[in-house]
Amino acid sequence: MRNPQLNRNGELTHLLSIEGLPRAVINHVLDTAASYAPLADHDVKKVPLLHGKSVFNLFFENSTRTRTTFEIAAKRLSADVYNLNINASSASKGESLLDTINNLSAMQADLFVVRHASSGAPHLIAQHVAPHIHVINAGDGRHAHPTQGLLDMYTIRHYKQDFTKLTVAIVGDVLHSRVARSDIHALTTLGVPEVRVIAPLTLLPAGMESLGVKVFTDMAEGLKGVDVIIMLRLQNERMRGALLPSAQEYFKHYGLTQDKLALAAPDAIVMHPGPMNRGVEIDSSVADGKQAVILNQVTFGIAVRMAVMSIVAGA
Amino acid sequence: MRNPQLNRNGELTHLLSIEGLPRAVINHVLDTAASYAPLADHDVKKVPLLHGKSVFNLFFENSTRTRTTFEIAAKRLSADVYNLNINASSASKGESLLDTINNLSAMQADLFVVRHASSGAPHLIAQHVAPHIHVINAGDGRHAHPTQGLLDMYTIRHYKQDFTKLTVAIVGDVLHSRVARSDIHALTTLGVPEVRVIAPLTLLPAGMESLGVKVFTDMAEGLKGVDVIIMLRLQNERMRGALLPSAQEYFKHYGLTQDKLALAAPDAIVMHPGPMNRGVEIDSSVADGKQAVILNQVTFGIAVRMAVMSIVAGA
Amino acid sequence: MRNPQLNRNGELTHLLSIEGLPRAVINHVLDTAASYAPLADHDVKKVPLLHGKSVFNLFFENSTRTRTTFEIAAKRLSADVYNLNINASSASKGESLLDTINNLSAMQADLFVVRHASSGAPHLIAQHVAPHIHVINAGDGRHAHPTQGLLDMYTIRHYKQDFTKLTVAIVGDVLHSRVARSDIHALTTLGVPEVRVIAPLTLLPAGMESLGVKVFTDMAEGLKGVDVIIMLRLQNERMRGALLPSAQEYFKHYGLTQDKLALAAPDAIVMHPGPMNRGVEIDSSVADGKQAVILNQVTFGIAVRMAVMSIVAGA
Repeated sequence: MRNPQLNRNGELTHLLSIEGLPRAVINHVLDTAASYAPLADHDVKKVPLLHGKSVFNLFFENSTRTRTTFEIAAKRLSADVYNLNINASSASKGESLLDTINNLSAMQADLFVVRHASSGAPHLIAQHVAPHIHVINAGDGRHAHPTQGLLDMYTIRHYKQDFTKLTVAIVGDVLHSRVARSDIHALTTLGVPEVRVIAPLTLLPAGMESLGVKVFTDMAEGLKGVDVIIMLRLQNERMRGALLPSAQEYFKHYGLTQDKLALAAPDAIVMHPGPMNRGVEIDSSVADGKQAVILNQVTFGIAVRMAVMSIVAGA
Repeated sequence: MRNPQLNRNGELTHLLSIEGLPRAVINHVLDTAASYAPLADHDVKKVPLLHGKSVFNLFFENSTRTRTTFEIAAKRLSADVYNLNINASSASKGESLLDTINNLSAMQADLFVVRHASSGAPHLIAQHVAPHIHVINAGDGRHAHPTQGLLDMYTIRHYKQDFTKLTVAIVGDVLHSRVARSDIHALTTLGVPEVRVIAPLTLLPAGMESLGVKVFTDMAEGLKGVDVIIMLRLQNERMRGALLPSAQEYFKHYGLTQDKLALAAPDAIVMHPGPMNRGVEIDSSVADGKQAVILNQVTFGIAVRMAVMSIVAGA
Repeated sequence: MRNPQLNRNGELTHLLSIEGLPRAVINHVLDTAASYAPLADHDVKKVPLLHGKSVFNLFFENSTRTRTTFEIAAKRLSADVYNLNINASSASKGESLLDTINNLSAMQADLFVVRHASSGAPHLIAQHVAPHIHVINAGDGRHAHPTQGLLDMYTIRHYKQDFTKLTVAIVGDVLHSRVARSDIHALTTLGVPEVRVIAPLTLLPAGMESLGVKVFTDMAEGLKGVDVIIMLRLQNERMRGALLPSAQEYFKHYGLTQDKLALAAPDAIVMHPGPMNRGVEIDSSVADGKQAVILNQVTFGIAVRMAVMSIVAGA
């Protein structure tokens, strides 16, 4: 079976998951993003690459922040953008996902950016659409969030250049995190020799080792000498369930403080996908400290999403 | 009294209802739409006809799908589009409809696309606005949905060319359908010699014959030899009331299946305004079958809405 | 401490409040707005001044009408506009206001238009953002609504030319009105010799005289000979509380009728920020009468918001 993300020439035609993306394709996205990054300093931050194209933000699950990053990326490429909050409309009229997609395709969409609570929804859509339509996964269930994974790789490459000499730690609620999954696939594909996962047992999915990562439940041990720390957001809902005792307890053991950060390499960078829970998974002094590159991730994210959109639209 | 949709030169200045539109005006819309249809295959699907104009989507009743079709049409004409969900704002502050319209007019609107739960609201607005402002009805109560009617005519003309030789059947919940009303007016104006309406007695409004249509309660009888079948959406809410026994019962008698379709002319086309209730008013094998032109209706709908917008804005 | 609204050269860099704005800065806004006003009669109402700039409408408090006026102004300046209803997103995820702002800044925003239920929120944001980002207050709590104040000044100057010869009355719920506050500061700064405030005692804040205004509780007395009447909207919620007996009672004493209007100068103009409660604070015959300039305020408001945006973006 052909990789559903690549066309017959091996070019990226949909971005559904980092799993299964060849290293060359990931590097092509990062290189293209690097070519857009200088636009941030221009007075006019736009390029006409997608002029006249129609980008549909199909958010079956609400996320103003992520939707906005895609809207910005599309408008900087001069596309026309349509924001559709689908929960509130067709879905409530009982129409099926594929009928909704068929309908929008018939309006001559060029690009669907899809966020959905169900894992696999973007794959289903990609299998179904005509060849000239491209699908970008903006987060599906617990499965994947590939543009976040790519912008994380862009950030690491920006600060550390060579992936093949790094130790990277991913810390927190790995169980529920599509970001963790996307990052692990990207890091191993790009040749990072040591990827660590640090989490309490209750937030660790089974079979992590098979993904090529080292598992730690002790944060101090896991952070020793790492070059990159990727903190994960702790969903507030977890606290109410049986998985965690309290935010205070969690912070004590898995919150990133200056003390714990001191165990990493002196030039380690601290990343977070946002939005942050200060005082839960990260201390404010670290979040606002010199080693944090959290806001830079956001800036790079625009360039990375522009890169993905322009690459798939050209495929 | 002058036709409120036409200016002193007999040109379309508002689109409120197909009732009362001269055949020449309808044909002008269809011809103009035909000139836009090839844009669908262009790389840049835009024309600068409404550059600098302001189109306001005033949706007093929520409909993401219909709103999106108008937004696409307006942006393909290079207009600036403003989406206003009015329920959630001024209406709740107790302001009258006309004060809201006066306000938006003072912001130098050029075009109002109005969807309202009350029949006649777009007429009221059209009577009230300054001469340089144009109003398009995007569905008012049970009254009219003229752009749907026009795109249905476009679809029929595309596949059947000559209206004067056709038998057309409209099937389903005629009682609550603004689409049925708009289609009947359009078909009789364009010279279709036989328009049939097929529905259970409880979903048939009184006095249908006075509109020049033949009424059937037996679907097999009504479909015999027809060239065009327009299926209507069955609102889920009808099932809960006293009007219908159950979705299964309805499907048995009025759902379009392959068997029933075989009673029509061999080259009959099947239309539906969407969103479809598969298994209620239409069987999936028909909806996805060779005779269905349902998605083509959607595509033509963009060109037709571009045509209406550019015509009224030029009037 | 430097005025937070002005840069080192004394130019407007944020618009947070009319309080503290020098007369020259206000006049510069009004003059610039006057240069945009003729655009209203052009076929293409756009200028390319903010092409490629990103304007974020950050509405922490919903207001479709005000949001739309800023969206129109930004698009007429050719900016890209992003509408963010923040209540429904990050705020609910527990992120702090400043983290939200930092995030959006990292997406290379140029302009934030901020509406917030808390007085001072736009000030807080302005203190925090990088120097190349500009903040416009679109209404904060009971504090200020400076673009409304400026468009009111534009309206008065348009009809009365010379501020230094005028008597202006502000009538109604001064206690809860950010418009009243902004207008009073603007009028006194521009040299209006007599600013009157007319309101029931329960709707009068303490210490009005210290702002340089004359207080009246009797409307007939307060309106005598005034050149400009600014009516305030009476929030419906006030009626439910203990502050007012009933809408009828209020209308009797403080509603602007033809009779009461006759007490003002014969060429007095009547203003209202909208939306109006007809029959509560203003009689329909006055609202639609010859002396009302209420819809003109709306039109001027677009030019004034364009002026503010283009001035701060150039600072």
